[in-house]
Amino acid sequence: MFKVKVLTIGKCKEKWLSSALLEYEKRLKGKLSMEWILAKDDTQLTEMALKESFIALDPKGTLLSSEQWCEKMMTLGLRLVFVIGGAVGLSEQLKKHAQFIWSLSPLTFTHQITRLILAEQLYRATEIERGSQYHK
Amino acid sequence: MFKVKVLTIGKCKEKWLSSALLEYEKRLKGKLSMEWILAKDDTQLTEMALKESFIALDPKGTLLSSEQWCEKMMTLGLRLVFVIGGAVGLSEQLKKHAQFIWSLSPLTFTHQITRLILAEQLYRATEIERGSQYHK
Repeated sequence: MFKVKVLTIGKCKEKWLSSALLEYEKRLKGKLSMEWILAKDDTQLTEMALKESFIALDPKGTLLSSEQWCEKMMTLGLRLVFVIGGAVGLSEQLKKHAQFIWSLSPLTFTHQITRLILAEQLYRATEIERGSQYHK
Repeated sequence: MFKVKVLTIGKCKEKWLSSALLEYEKRLKGKLSMEWILAKDDTQLTEMALKESFIALDPKGTLLSSEQWCEKMMTLGLRLVFVIGGAVGLSEQLKKHAQFIWSLSPLTFTHQITRLILAEQLYRATEIERGSQYHK
């Protein structure tokens, strides 16, 4: 089973986000667990991230199709840590330390939307891997 | 004021989506109005789309940063029609007819997430255009 930890900044104030994330967490039950660690600022995020081997999310990272992400994910091991940067993006220090920098899109997204996309792409990858029709 | 029409397939069953879209529609009030037209299948979507001059959303289209999308949007006039393809993607006919094919990401998204990203990017573009700090 995959154990996923996501380090990000801020709160989950939006009800719609909690309810959407809950939906994906339910679907992922038994295959992948998600833990959201919310840092209070960039300094705390950096401190926490530097203790981990992590995948950074940044619009300037490598763009992948969902199938390519699935392939990549299967090579990364069962314990995955993601870092979503703050409002000013990821620091150079975090970029250097990252095992991989993944771009969900060259568009800038809010944290909330980034979290939702990440959860859905993790679910999609598990469905691609098991050969279901979800991703078609 | 921008008048945006989005043609897509399916229903808005998810409560979280309705509530998230409502949030962006509220923020866009007075600057941009959004109308969602939900076709029942690909045939109906194609029929409706062929009567319009539209921007197609497709993972294989042109990737843009939010700033590039804002610039592009300002050249397209005040009446914008978007077409989000069905589960099998956009037909060749629709691709040929589109005035522009925009890729939100090379990743495959659900319709729900595509609709949310589109609403947020339209809001972001209006904020970039008015020089606010939202997009930073």
